[in-house]
Amino acid sequence: MKKLIKNGIIVTATDTYQADLLIENGKISCIGQDLAVGGAEVIDAKGCYVFPGAIDPHTHLEMPFGGTVSKDDFETGTIAAAFGGTTTVIDFCLTSKGEPLTNAIQTWHAKSKDKAVIDYGFHLMIGEINDDVLEELPVVMDEEGITSFKVFMAYKNVFQADDGTLFRTLVAAKELGGLVMVHAENGDVIEYLIQQALAEGKTDPIYHALTRPPEVEGEATSRATQLTGLANSQLYVVHVSCADAVEKIADARRKGFDVWGETCPQYLVLDQTYLEKPDFEGAKYVWSPPLREKWHQDVLWNALKNGDLQTLGSDQCSFDFKGQKDLGKGDFTKIPNGGPIIEDRVSILFSEGVNKGRITLNQFVNITSTRIAKLFGLYPQKGTIAVGTDADLVIFDPKIERIISVETHHMAADYNPFEGMKVTGEPVTVLSRGEFVIREKQFVGKLGHGRYLKRAKYNSEKTDVRQSNSLTI
Amino acid sequence: MKKLIKNGIIVTATDTYQADLLIENGKISCIGQDLAVGGAEVIDAKGCYVFPGAIDPHTHLEMPFGGTVSKDDFETGTIAAAFGGTTTVIDFCLTSKGEPLTNAIQTWHAKSKDKAVIDYGFHLMIGEINDDVLEELPVVMDEEGITSFKVFMAYKNVFQADDGTLFRTLVAAKELGGLVMVHAENGDVIEYLIQQALAEGKTDPIYHALTRPPEVEGEATSRATQLTGLANSQLYVVHVSCADAVEKIADARRKGFDVWGETCPQYLVLDQTYLEKPDFEGAKYVWSPPLREKWHQDVLWNALKNGDLQTLGSDQCSFDFKGQKDLGKGDFTKIPNGGPIIEDRVSILFSEGVNKGRITLNQFVNITSTRIAKLFGLYPQKGTIAVGTDADLVIFDPKIERIISVETHHMAADYNPFEGMKVTGEPVTVLSRGEFVIREKQFVGKLGHGRYLKRAKYNSEKTDVRQSNSLTI
Amino acid sequence: MKKLIKNGIIVTATDTYQADLLIENGKISCIGQDLAVGGAEVIDAKGCYVFPGAIDPHTHLEMPFGGTVSKDDFETGTIAAAFGGTTTVIDFCLTSKGEPLTNAIQTWHAKSKDKAVIDYGFHLMIGEINDDVLEELPVVMDEEGITSFKVFMAYKNVFQADDGTLFRTLVAAKELGGLVMVHAENGDVIEYLIQQALAEGKTDPIYHALTRPPEVEGEATSRATQLTGLANSQLYVVHVSCADAVEKIADARRKGFDVWGETCPQYLVLDQTYLEKPDFEGAKYVWSPPLREKWHQDVLWNALKNGDLQTLGSDQCSFDFKGQKDLGKGDFTKIPNGGPIIEDRVSILFSEGVNKGRITLNQFVNITSTRIAKLFGLYPQKGTIAVGTDADLVIFDPKIERIISVETHHMAADYNPFEGMKVTGEPVTVLSRGEFVIREKQFVGKLGHGRYLKRAKYNSEKTDVRQSNSLTI
Amino acid sequence: MKKLIKNGIIVTATDTYQADLLIENGKISCIGQDLAVGGAEVIDAKGCYVFPGAIDPHTHLEMPFGGTVSKDDFETGTIAAAFGGTTTVIDFCLTSKGEPLTNAIQTWHAKSKDKAVIDYGFHLMIGEINDDVLEELPVVMDEEGITSFKVFMAYKNVFQADDGTLFRTLVAAKELGGLVMVHAENGDVIEYLIQQALAEGKTDPIYHALTRPPEVEGEATSRATQLTGLANSQLYVVHVSCADAVEKIADARRKGFDVWGETCPQYLVLDQTYLEKPDFEGAKYVWSPPLREKWHQDVLWNALKNGDLQTLGSDQCSFDFKGQKDLGKGDFTKIPNGGPIIEDRVSILFSEGVNKGRITLNQFVNITSTRIAKLFGLYPQKGTIAVGTDADLVIFDPKIERIISVETHHMAADYNPFEGMKVTGEPVTVLSRGEFVIREKQFVGKLGHGRYLKRAKYNSEKTDVRQSNSLTI
Repeated sequence: MKKLIKNGIIVTATDTYQADLLIENGKISCIGQDLAVGGAEVIDAKGCYVFPGAIDPHTHLEMPFGGTVSKDDFETGTIAAAFGGTTTVIDFCLTSKGEPLTNAIQTWHAKSKDKAVIDYGFHLMIGEINDDVLEELPVVMDEEGITSFKVFMAYKNVFQADDGTLFRTLVAAKELGGLVMVHAENGDVIEYLIQQALAEGKTDPIYHALTRPPEVEGEATSRATQLTGLANSQLYVVHVSCADAVEKIADARRKGFDVWGETCPQYLVLDQTYLEKPDFEGAKYVWSPPLREKWHQDVLWNALKNGDLQTLGSDQCSFDFKGQKDLGKGDFTKIPNGGPIIEDRVSILFSEGVNKGRITLNQFVNITSTRIAKLFGLYPQKGTIAVGTDADLVIFDPKIERIISVETHHMAADYNPFEGMKVTGEPVTVLSRGEFVIREKQFVGKLGHGRYLKRAKYNSEKTDVRQSNSLTI
Repeated sequence: MKKLIKNGIIVTATDTYQADLLIENGKISCIGQDLAVGGAEVIDAKGCYVFPGAIDPHTHLEMPFGGTVSKDDFETGTIAAAFGGTTTVIDFCLTSKGEPLTNAIQTWHAKSKDKAVIDYGFHLMIGEINDDVLEELPVVMDEEGITSFKVFMAYKNVFQADDGTLFRTLVAAKELGGLVMVHAENGDVIEYLIQQALAEGKTDPIYHALTRPPEVEGEATSRATQLTGLANSQLYVVHVSCADAVEKIADARRKGFDVWGETCPQYLVLDQTYLEKPDFEGAKYVWSPPLREKWHQDVLWNALKNGDLQTLGSDQCSFDFKGQKDLGKGDFTKIPNGGPIIEDRVSILFSEGVNKGRITLNQFVNITSTRIAKLFGLYPQKGTIAVGTDADLVIFDPKIERIISVETHHMAADYNPFEGMKVTGEPVTVLSRGEFVIREKQFVGKLGHGRYLKRAKYNSEKTDVRQSNSLTI
Repeated sequence: MKKLIKNGIIVTATDTYQADLLIENGKISCIGQDLAVGGAEVIDAKGCYVFPGAIDPHTHLEMPFGGTVSKDDFETGTIAAAFGGTTTVIDFCLTSKGEPLTNAIQTWHAKSKDKAVIDYGFHLMIGEINDDVLEELPVVMDEEGITSFKVFMAYKNVFQADDGTLFRTLVAAKELGGLVMVHAENGDVIEYLIQQALAEGKTDPIYHALTRPPEVEGEATSRATQLTGLANSQLYVVHVSCADAVEKIADARRKGFDVWGETCPQYLVLDQTYLEKPDFEGAKYVWSPPLREKWHQDVLWNALKNGDLQTLGSDQCSFDFKGQKDLGKGDFTKIPNGGPIIEDRVSILFSEGVNKGRITLNQFVNITSTRIAKLFGLYPQKGTIAVGTDADLVIFDPKIERIISVETHHMAADYNPFEGMKVTGEPVTVLSRGEFVIREKQFVGKLGHGRYLKRAKYNSEKTDVRQSNSLTI
Repeated sequence: MKKLIKNGIIVTATDTYQADLLIENGKISCIGQDLAVGGAEVIDAKGCYVFPGAIDPHTHLEMPFGGTVSKDDFETGTIAAAFGGTTTVIDFCLTSKGEPLTNAIQTWHAKSKDKAVIDYGFHLMIGEINDDVLEELPVVMDEEGITSFKVFMAYKNVFQADDGTLFRTLVAAKELGGLVMVHAENGDVIEYLIQQALAEGKTDPIYHALTRPPEVEGEATSRATQLTGLANSQLYVVHVSCADAVEKIADARRKGFDVWGETCPQYLVLDQTYLEKPDFEGAKYVWSPPLREKWHQDVLWNALKNGDLQTLGSDQCSFDFKGQKDLGKGDFTKIPNGGPIIEDRVSILFSEGVNKGRITLNQFVNITSTRIAKLFGLYPQKGTIAVGTDADLVIFDPKIERIISVETHHMAADYNPFEGMKVTGEPVTVLSRGEFVIREKQFVGKLGHGRYLKRAKYNSEKTDVRQSNSLTI
């Protein structure tokens, strides 16, 4: 059935204009003034923006970590995402050394199938590079459409890869058309600082931050960007938290390296003092990299504005405060890293970014959706509002005020790190391929509606050209 | 009468997609798949891109300079522009100290009225700041819609303003909502180097370049950006030619300053050796700033790619080789500065930039049109393809090969600086507010069709938001 | 008569060692262990350092400024200098446009002759460059031994020179073997900020600082260093006060430019809050450039340590609080700029620098004496302790504690900007060419003992080689 | 017996002056004009400089490497060093994982005892950090006077330490007063590039350079300096070969980090094209890091001039071309790394640096001797010419021209990498603790004269203060 969204202000990464929008067969078929279409269901968007559905490039749903499993799975996680205006997630598929990559991928398919209410794809962790992996990689890319690979420079003895692995992954990505993602912290140094802290009886959550200072993120970021330049490859630095890392990314880009950076809402609005909350509440704010001193926030905002950082991920990886976070009582290293962010990512950027004049409305769309789609091979199916794209749409009322709270959120975790924060601007209706997922702030979607997305290969800035070429010429 | 452009690939600064496009009353009214509209004239764009009309932010039409007058006026200049895919120009209105600003503006209106075949606006030169000027400025902005001011840091004893004038202009622009443009070269140092060269009998065209080394542009650029930061104002650096200047602009942006940079085709594809051509032919390549050593080109391209530079202007200011350029025989300082570029600006960027993979198709649109419209208060009327915008459109065949030549160009000047250069990709049909100006590579426009554009005030990156706000909310 | 200094710790810019030191005919003739010399007057330096006499490269004695004249002249000024361990001063000879340079020089000779108790030289202000000046300069250099030229980038309409003058001075200095000194602040911008402040009724001393923000110093410093690089000349930036300027100097040096930087004690230990003292006391702390926010101090100290800054001057230019500074009551622009610093410069650097571990003992000697002698053509006659150099020596007891105060100082001004500050380490005996000037903390010198110093030409870092070459080879 | 050096020009890191110099008991006892000392042997240094003996901070004598042993041992190596004006060497003592550090030290004592003709000390390689090492380190420092520790970031699976080891070494050095030295190349990346090259059949010497590009040195240098900043420790980067590394060291110093850099003669005057010499002769020029493109040389010279690099080492590690270097025929990875440099290090710096005006005479002394003595705890016993220091002296005739050649050199290796290069300036007489080692260009020293030097702890820039404090106060 056709749907007609009327009277909204359509916003893309470039444009802002009032028009009506027609959906047919799950795709946008027409945008015009005063459209009247017989038989179409009319949705009135008066007073609202119409955004392309946001894409979360960084989620960890139902992920095993430190002896427990992240609380939100592909059901609760994607429902919460949809409430927040997100219509696609890309989750990290964790691999194990010595096992075929496809094993891990099958595990992730099993987690997500019949659960996700919005579309989703996978990134693939690379923990080692050997002949088996090199043989399997192109197959995975072609058959599974997984075209981005994550390398950890931290989590010594768990996920951490050495520089040889990182470099070989960069070289392989260059050859195969993949995008390498790094968690950039120097794991060796962190390991030492942690052992030192524990030996001195420093076990409170704040020591999580103090044993991962900005310098270790800055160093790893500079290392990864330099290796990328040498390999003439492409790199996406996840969850950039501090000025040190921003500086290195900006340096690399200025040299012409193909380097991109993502930050997360927590780094934009929270700071290191949260880790000092009493009664072990600091544990709620344990991410890696950790929250930083407040002044770093200005640097991150400026980088989003001037383009040194390009995207916003949630790094969603939620754990209950009771029963999960408290595993780390008496030893901060046992606090599961992560938090419930998937739902509020978009609202926070809108409220703190657009409303406060730090970024423009179009940059907001680019940061939450378009640039992500282009980088990760989802464009033009996802990531914009144009004739022919999937009707993943968000009708967003910029005037609604809301207090973020665990009382009202839809994530499974038993707390919300932004508890009490007021945001202005909220999705009221969300469509995925033309189907309502959220309607007038109520969930009306279906488990299993979400489809697995095979993604196109990375082609540098040329991403956006590539697809269109297949359209015609 | 309605027009329907069918089967083209529509390209904006963000998107690339195939769709049909309906024009009503000079504006885009609908974009959709397989549109069929009764009574509409159908234009088949199969195999072609449909771009928003390019905007040339930097022209000097019929401008007095060094005892002569630039050859192309608002008639030949805008016709040539249209052939090249440009549908809007913003020309520089030169003022004289001690005279009301409106005098100059009236002169410029007289030059352009009944001549221009495409729409146009004016920037205003600021040569001095005093109470009269400060009183007149807001009036000019409101009544004439002139919201950008040009300050020269070079041309000692002619156009050059001192730092006090530059700083006061920056302060005034901040208060009033204007954008300050600078010609950034240290005129004092140039003056000395010129006198020295002449005293040593160095009179050939190459000494034009050697007496304006990159350092004088780098210095002036750093000075202008630092004063902008101090004034918390906004700056647009015109015709950036070298690495030295790019570096300073990038530094300023990284500090969060509201600084923008424009380059020109000549700096991207020509180099300093052209000034050494025999038989005084070097004079054809005399621009200020001058052409640079070839390696600077890579820095400029990289800056366009990574966003440290944002726009492309032509700096159109054409003179005949015979009768004008040759005024400088025996004294390079008497060579009129400038050349005929307005027609080939867009093709060169497409051919050298997009076709060679240096920038993407969407960046191409942003650089030639969208970003310019936003910076200079023309958006959303101009600068994009979206429902509601002016139907300033270019149907562009990316496969046509052409040799640039004075034999075939439409500018009045008697030579072309890019003579013999092959470009691939050419406008075939160009519309201004829905009317054909160029149709199947023939001029079909009308003198005086072009309208004077009152432009909106500058509002930083928020330019793009501002207008849309007036649409509804 | 011979003098023998026994048991001291001799310190040079490189070495620290215990030895005895013999003086004959005003020069150092021998350094050895356990020297015994018949007929020599023995001076026991046990427990003390023996330093080369400090050189103050930046004084304004009896200088007309703003309708008054600086309080300390060559008598009180050089006596106070000697108390502080300074045995040579280089004063600024101010010129007037249109008058022969030698007129100014004769005026300065008249001020100093028969007054100075220590040796002295002159720098020459360059306010304009024309044929007369260019003709006179080499004569002045040869006959008067004045080899350093000062250009003001600030004090609009008073001392300020334009960029053409600065550049031509740099070029001339390169050719002639001179060193260009700049007062680096953007005078045009300052003038505007001042007018703005006054128009708003902001007349208190603090507005002196607020109308000369660090950015205007940073900008002028970057301009001067860039012009120096272009001219392939040599530059000495006087009284560097802030991080902005340090950064530019360090950038220039990294590019291989021959650029040097001086700071002053006031910038190392005082800060902008002093200008807010009540009862107009802020006027005591009015220097140009002004005192800065406290954090700049760390940058200055680090620059002295790592060599980005190389020297310490006093910028001595003292005025009484009553009768002079108070000319600026109700209008901060009328406060005479400067203060009494000549006496405490060395003690402050020793106490705050060496004793607090910020610089080494040898760096201290280099910064206060050796590097200055080399830069300004006084080495090897002055600036070190070696056989053959003038016996300008300071016997310095590092354990004496002293409270700086107007009550005990020997300068003519009626206040001391460091009033109440405790310093540890003090000269007890000071010799000039082997004659006592200060003996056991008492003045025993003679008016007119000080000789005018004709200085050698600048020869880049090669300064130190040059002279020695004339010794033999 | 006393010795009296007459008529020479004494040069220190600061001073250049003519004086006579008396030696008693192996130490300098007096410096004066026209000294006449009964019973002293007079050495006429007319027309010559008298330098403090040079110190080579970086030698590998009789070192096992890749299945062979470096050709020059403590006998031939130190004799050749003396011929070149070097009177102290500090050799690298290689340790093995799992073995007590003292085992390695004893091995090195055995190599050097009764052989060395000049004084010597040891640096200690740190390959791992564990409780045993941490327990042994302070003992080694106190008892053996070994206060500098070398960590390799390259030579994967051989010497390479991980970042944890590097960081812990930095932390330990900070606590104990040691100086950490790094070989800064990213060994992981090199290993991959080597495997790739070999797999492609690229086995010639030039691939040694191409598999260790400047980027891997730049990256490792930035990593090491950043970790040093985080540890608030001290770092000495050995054998800096390229602009990439210089830039990182300069950045670190500007931030106030306690970071130092050494380069070597081969990087200053040879370049990568030497590796392409036919008949496997390229193998003679195999060092790690490798020779670079020629333009890097300018950056290195400028860094020596402006202080971003501070010392010159030889990295002496000689191998015969026949029988050793040729182990790598058909596989560049088997070419022993290193060459015979110890003899010509000083002459090359003098001839190419001082004579060509790139550095001053005093900088030359600082770079080859004084700064090294201060950094490595040898000052004031070594490293300068002052009363009380060891009479390690070089009488150097700046006018002698010499062609470097294997025919005339005194090293054991069968080739000289600088073969045919003309140098001007040569040591004629060299004394170690007052005894002749070289006299009028003849070796007159004694095996075993050289004493093992226990070195003082590192104390940052304060090195020079520290020792002097023990003298008296």
